[in-house]
Amino acid sequence: MTDGTPAPKKLTKKELRILERQKAAAVAAGPTLTDTVKDLNVELQGQSFWVRGYLQTVRAKAKLVFITIRQQTATIQAILHESDKVSRAMIKFAAGVPKESVVDVFVTLSVPESPVVSTTQKDVELNVEKLFVVSKALPELPFQVEDAARSDTIVKAEGSTYVNVGLETRLNTRPLDLRTPANQCIMRIQAAVGQLFREFLMSRDFVEIHTPKLVGGASESGANCFTLKYFDQDAALAQSPQTYKQMACAVAGLERVFEIGPVFRAENSNTHRHMCEFVGLDLEMTIREHYHEVLEVFSDLFIYIFDGLKERYAKELAIINEQHPFEMLKYQKPSLIINFEEGVKMLKEAGASQEPEDDLSTENEKWLGRLVKEKYDTDFYILDKFPLGVRPFYTMPDPNDKRWSNSYDMMIRGEEIVSGAQRVHDPNLLIERMQELGVPQDSMRTYIDSFRLGALPHGGGGIGLERVVMLYLGLGNIRKASMFPRDPKRLFP
Amino acid sequence: MTDGTPAPKKLTKKELRILERQKAAAVAAGPTLTDTVKDLNVELQGQSFWVRGYLQTVRAKAKLVFITIRQQTATIQAILHESDKVSRAMIKFAAGVPKESVVDVFVTLSVPESPVVSTTQKDVELNVEKLFVVSKALPELPFQVEDAARSDTIVKAEGSTYVNVGLETRLNTRPLDLRTPANQCIMRIQAAVGQLFREFLMSRDFVEIHTPKLVGGASESGANCFTLKYFDQDAALAQSPQTYKQMACAVAGLERVFEIGPVFRAENSNTHRHMCEFVGLDLEMTIREHYHEVLEVFSDLFIYIFDGLKERYAKELAIINEQHPFEMLKYQKPSLIINFEEGVKMLKEAGASQEPEDDLSTENEKWLGRLVKEKYDTDFYILDKFPLGVRPFYTMPDPNDKRWSNSYDMMIRGEEIVSGAQRVHDPNLLIERMQELGVPQDSMRTYIDSFRLGALPHGGGGIGLERVVMLYLGLGNIRKASMFPRDPKRLFP
Repeated sequence: MTDGTPAPKKLTKKELRILERQKAAAVAAGPTLTDTVKDLNVELQGQSFWVRGYLQTVRAKAKLVFITIRQQTATIQAILHESDKVSRAMIKFAAGVPKESVVDVFVTLSVPESPVVSTTQKDVELNVEKLFVVSKALPELPFQVEDAARSDTIVKAEGSTYVNVGLETRLNTRPLDLRTPANQCIMRIQAAVGQLFREFLMSRDFVEIHTPKLVGGASESGANCFTLKYFDQDAALAQSPQTYKQMACAVAGLERVFEIGPVFRAENSNTHRHMCEFVGLDLEMTIREHYHEVLEVFSDLFIYIFDGLKERYAKELAIINEQHPFEMLKYQKPSLIINFEEGVKMLKEAGASQEPEDDLSTENEKWLGRLVKEKYDTDFYILDKFPLGVRPFYTMPDPNDKRWSNSYDMMIRGEEIVSGAQRVHDPNLLIERMQELGVPQDSMRTYIDSFRLGALPHGGGGIGLERVVMLYLGLGNIRKASMFPRDPKRLFP
Repeated sequence: MTDGTPAPKKLTKKELRILERQKAAAVAAGPTLTDTVKDLNVELQGQSFWVRGYLQTVRAKAKLVFITIRQQTATIQAILHESDKVSRAMIKFAAGVPKESVVDVFVTLSVPESPVVSTTQKDVELNVEKLFVVSKALPELPFQVEDAARSDTIVKAEGSTYVNVGLETRLNTRPLDLRTPANQCIMRIQAAVGQLFREFLMSRDFVEIHTPKLVGGASESGANCFTLKYFDQDAALAQSPQTYKQMACAVAGLERVFEIGPVFRAENSNTHRHMCEFVGLDLEMTIREHYHEVLEVFSDLFIYIFDGLKERYAKELAIINEQHPFEMLKYQKPSLIINFEEGVKMLKEAGASQEPEDDLSTENEKWLGRLVKEKYDTDFYILDKFPLGVRPFYTMPDPNDKRWSNSYDMMIRGEEIVSGAQRVHDPNLLIERMQELGVPQDSMRTYIDSFRLGALPHGGGGIGLERVVMLYLGLGNIRKASMFPRDPKRLFP
């Protein structure tokens, strides 16, 4: 301890701190990067410091206690062995700390003779001198994080005797479920998609906006709207930022806008891909000559997102893949665009029943996805020129053929993730279309009238964030892509 | 072209236009930057291209028509004069186009003999050969953009005969009001504050999250909550992401999280600084040794935001300043922190009436802001260690003196923009505090129970986006910092 290494000084300081801490019954570890589990390495051999984390496992063995400490996706083995520094009472205490409690340990880093197999940190381990319980978990948890983190392949293998922690059980205690490395990374991928969306659009001169979620009347039509009392007025929760983003873009003249915000749907759908509240990634932009300018932006945007995930989030994708194996998404540059008519033809040739001007059923949508994959080897494509009859009133009709419209969906692995269109910017045509479709005009008055202030031709679309995450990662259920999902039955936690 | 003319005819005109363009074979093809008003310059002299924009003003003078075309914050003068290319009929037509209509003009750029005074583009002007109305504005608008854009100094000058376009009038036709250069820039500053917030936090390893706005029961207490029916359950709109961001940070173990999203308050306050829906910039982070780690992040965050606005948005700030003169914000590096007790002392010494453990009234808050400005020459400061009695139940009491708490507000020009604290992470202490304050536990069950899963010590705070924008820019009314504000009386547009 007198060889001039910085360790003694550090230790003394920490010792003082421990005294303070014991007195104040407060928290302890130093906010240095070296005690972050993921950053620990062999160069720190012999150094002593504090580590805080969740106690993932505890295993007592004669005079030894092996514990695994977890921070986010990183785990490390720590060992207590009875000595002059570690009493028998402490060994007993450590062996009894409930799993998933938050602990502070004062440790010295060492290099094990053979790599540790059960932790992400394999070349280093920790010798524990002190252990404090910062926050004690219940002795009986609804499920074990170890069980919740096990690979699908193992759990579902024939003859597997492992617990399969069901989705309902997970969601009922979601904060615990979110501790699995895969879920930590799914949440990071969700954040990444939003960030890549913003980055790309800002580089193309889009401005971020925030439009109201409390609206007078329904945002598109009265159906599927959550309604509430707003002081003495009737209000609804916006089903999309549609009307507001249009006004911001085309009437207020911001020209290129995007919004990231919640979208509310009072739809009693209990499927794998519907939620009553989800995050909308919306954009709206002016069109100069042709609405395909919008499709070009969308095409470039998705390529930017997909490239970005692959290049910057490889580590997170690998961790998710360990638990939930999935195939990396295939996509073209530029993105494949297929006309709706062509899609119908492909379906019919394959033997599907599909009317030319009907919307695609979920089944046919997936079928077409498989056909496109076979023919073009892409999991992402744009389906363009939908029948006018199946689109909302604000969709611009095809100027040459009123059966069709300047509208499109975008698909990942055969499921819709974007719906968009050129919009009607002529108030008279808008009213005509509303009358044709029987949409009440009363609550839409300020929207319609805004186009009488002079409006720029424009188009856009909305992306369902959780759907992109679900489909990109092949999760199979949208609830897994949402931190605290909301469906017709779930309002807690 | 918008008067009942169906879309096809318009598109045909567009096709003609495209032909014209191809003939001109100039810079004009496609949505290039060269035909963006703000980018036009003397180097383009003699070149011909199309420009689309709002027709801000029209002035006929014998065989000439002067028009001003506006795109976002940029304006340029365009001139039609009777010639073999421009007929008398066209001159007459142009003079009659309603202001604020969207027009397409085919022009040749020229350099005027003397600079144009009334437009932002002073060294170039446009000679118009063709003019189409893309979208016709009403001949009688609720107000003129020119009037709405006039400097406060001029409008409020003694003896001014200029129209003062009132806030209510503006908000009633907000998309028109948003066309003023100042409002275009206020919206950009709003976006910038959000972007700087994100940039900074991502650089500090924070993860963006999205928490539900539809919650079972009220998020903090039953008061001031919008309530609604969620299928057959009772729900409320989240008053803040408080409980969810805490669970994400401390229980799910994401450790550092932020969220940008709407916050709903059913508070019947009709003041200059309250809205019923606003954008919350929330953050929550684990604490290692002392809750001042959170204050350090906040201090650095605000310095990053303020520096970023000054360095990157000088142009926008100058444009806002032209209409709404304001003083640039003064702030210290690191940010000034004053204890609540010290604040009370300063107020008392100045003659204010203030009980030591009462909250500050709005009046005293502003007074203290002035005193701090005088003494420390800063418009931004942190007021730390609030009395426990005036803070919510989830606030961590001071471990040494239960009169105080580990909580803080942050102020710009004497008004609160952040409220935050270290949080209670011990479920038993949480229940104790709820009982003391009479907060019902029923709807908070999943929140309280989550801390029994093991929780990391943590703290954070929430920033009101529009308040920051209002106070930074000295706008005097929060509605001016919101795109479509919501107050107890306003639900439209």
